[in-house]
Amino acid sequence: MPFTDLARIRAEAPLVHNITNYVVMNTTANALLALGASPVMAHAIEEVEEMVGLARALVLNIGTLSPSWVEAMVRAGQAARRRGIPVVLDPVGSGATRYRTATALRLLDEVGPSIVRGNASEIASLAPAAGPSAAGGTKGVDSTRASDETVDAALAVATRWRCVVTVSGATDVIVGEGGTLRVRNGHPMMARVTGMGCTATALIGAFAAVNPDPLRAAAHAMAVMGIAGEMAAERAEGPGTLQLHFLDALHRMQEVDVRRRVRIDEG
Amino acid sequence: MPFTDLARIRAEAPLVHNITNYVVMNTTANALLALGASPVMAHAIEEVEEMVGLARALVLNIGTLSPSWVEAMVRAGQAARRRGIPVVLDPVGSGATRYRTATALRLLDEVGPSIVRGNASEIASLAPAAGPSAAGGTKGVDSTRASDETVDAALAVATRWRCVVTVSGATDVIVGEGGTLRVRNGHPMMARVTGMGCTATALIGAFAAVNPDPLRAAAHAMAVMGIAGEMAAERAEGPGTLQLHFLDALHRMQEVDVRRRVRIDEG
Amino acid sequence: MPFTDLARIRAEAPLVHNITNYVVMNTTANALLALGASPVMAHAIEEVEEMVGLARALVLNIGTLSPSWVEAMVRAGQAARRRGIPVVLDPVGSGATRYRTATALRLLDEVGPSIVRGNASEIASLAPAAGPSAAGGTKGVDSTRASDETVDAALAVATRWRCVVTVSGATDVIVGEGGTLRVRNGHPMMARVTGMGCTATALIGAFAAVNPDPLRAAAHAMAVMGIAGEMAAERAEGPGTLQLHFLDALHRMQEVDVRRRVRIDEG
Repeated sequence: MPFTDLARIRAEAPLVHNITNYVVMNTTANALLALGASPVMAHAIEEVEEMVGLARALVLNIGTLSPSWVEAMVRAGQAARRRGIPVVLDPVGSGATRYRTATALRLLDEVGPSIVRGNASEIASLAPAAGPSAAGGTKGVDSTRASDETVDAALAVATRWRCVVTVSGATDVIVGEGGTLRVRNGHPMMARVTGMGCTATALIGAFAAVNPDPLRAAAHAMAVMGIAGEMAAERAEGPGTLQLHFLDALHRMQEVDVRRRVRIDEG
Repeated sequence: MPFTDLARIRAEAPLVHNITNYVVMNTTANALLALGASPVMAHAIEEVEEMVGLARALVLNIGTLSPSWVEAMVRAGQAARRRGIPVVLDPVGSGATRYRTATALRLLDEVGPSIVRGNASEIASLAPAAGPSAAGGTKGVDSTRASDETVDAALAVATRWRCVVTVSGATDVIVGEGGTLRVRNGHPMMARVTGMGCTATALIGAFAAVNPDPLRAAAHAMAVMGIAGEMAAERAEGPGTLQLHFLDALHRMQEVDVRRRVRIDEG
Repeated sequence: MPFTDLARIRAEAPLVHNITNYVVMNTTANALLALGASPVMAHAIEEVEEMVGLARALVLNIGTLSPSWVEAMVRAGQAARRRGIPVVLDPVGSGATRYRTATALRLLDEVGPSIVRGNASEIASLAPAAGPSAAGGTKGVDSTRASDETVDAALAVATRWRCVVTVSGATDVIVGEGGTLRVRNGHPMMARVTGMGCTATALIGAFAAVNPDPLRAAAHAMAVMGIAGEMAAERAEGPGTLQLHFLDALHRMQEVDVRRRVRIDEG
């Protein structure tokens, strides 16, 4: 149940270490705090391994990458793996440039995240059959299209790197060894707020910190994310007010809200 | 008409590549999304030329500059020029330090932006007659004074670098080969929100992506910006709530809102 | 009186130079603007000394540090000291990693800030008796616990580096040569918004710019911060809306609000 995880997050306030992009640092820190988790942002090579030693999950996001940040992500990711804590990867913009695709593939190879979350074009760019050059076009990093035809790409990524893959879209698809789940929560206006995908990835980090099943952790995070978006959309007049009501909803969400709204299906 | 451009942005969702400052990345990405455009932020030398190859406009903003970012701006700017897409420059804080003035001048020389937007003291610092050392004092980067006496400076910059120059203020002045336009939209409380000038520059990028006339693209962007500020101020109780209602207004703005409020004058 | 300082800030709009972390740059710039001050963010070694020459206070915050930023902080801090303007240090996450603790100690030694603000665990990590390795655990950088037992650590830091030390918590404790003050303003929900501690430090910078007594400047800033949080909490439904109402409250706060709510005690 998503709410069981949420209640654990609120009770335990797990420290989630984020090496993420400049655009969403504030947004994702606030979302983690509103959820009940404890965020920390740290990217210096001098400290990432030590910082990840305090954390219960690591979130890697390549949204505004540069070489020293990539090195820090690799080191932090490997340290997290040695400690056995979950690593969640957001390959923002993979497929848009070769540097992003190559970096995402390097993190998959050298870190081995437990969960990857992206939109359809990002996940497609990572699928082994496609290869890094077959990414096709991109429409910015805030695209959230997800069609059934991308499930094959998700399965290919999940199989090749033995991880859970979450494809965000109107329906989120989560695939892994444990099967396939679809989450139908959310609201279209969320696509008009920057970093909502990155926020989803950060929330997955918090859920993975308290739930050892990565498939369900990812699905529960996507459901809570979507439910908060639905609750926010009922009060918002546009994408500006949506952002704030979204944080309020993460903070105020009760078991009854989750029970009434949750739409997670198997297969 | 500003609304014609806005409708095109909403229909086409042009990708606007921003190399901008840390303070406003989130704000400007959200403003571009609320407007209907597709923002992407990318600053690594490894990818900027490729990323700009996907974009329909490039926005360069020196608000928190450092050497590797400047190199990326030059490379991205030159790639944008080769592709023939508009480049918009925001010389944040030019005049405040020699490094900023020199960087702004270097970008004018080596990139040749089609549109420059700054406040009065920033534009004055770039005027050829004045030279880089004649910038005078600065009161932070959020100053939005614009007086008629700066029109000369704007004309000097526009003539020297063959570009359109937008000076933000209570009245925005836009000068270029095609003439001079004045935009009288906006609200004083906008000056109490950080990055409103940077947001204006980003919106100019979106308008320039759909309107090949840089003078009108800049004026239309400033008008839509100001109208959104007016609409937001009617609902806001301070600069905090203003920010959110501003994004909502960009999202909700209809033709009738623009028609009723727009105040663009020639000459 | 806190309001006397606030009125001076609004009248004089002092320029506050911030070298701060990526997470809070936007938030703290907006808080300084809402208060009435003029923020500037600049971190390049090429310009920090020149920029600090224009400012009336310097705020150093190590929340997302890396080596080139630390060098810039040292240079800017020393230039600020030579000019005689106040330097405020926020040792974010000191105690969490050796790099952060060492950096905070280096800034204390090589810059000599007039005011330090941190939470209890950060200040404890800097106390000479404890030494850099005795920091103990940390629960992220948004912790705001402050207990009486940390007053000893604050006194040790204040004595060793001849500065005023502010420990944030449900009750803020401010210690220095001039005595000890306790501020009991604020609201628990503020701890669910990222960067509220960093915002407090930035506001201290603005108050120190207009009030030459660092003990009272810090206490007045903490009181105004807390009062704005109280005013915001009366309108907010969660941490999202709290943030915006907080900025509105900084902007709207009148003398009567301060007089009715202020809770500063000696000793």
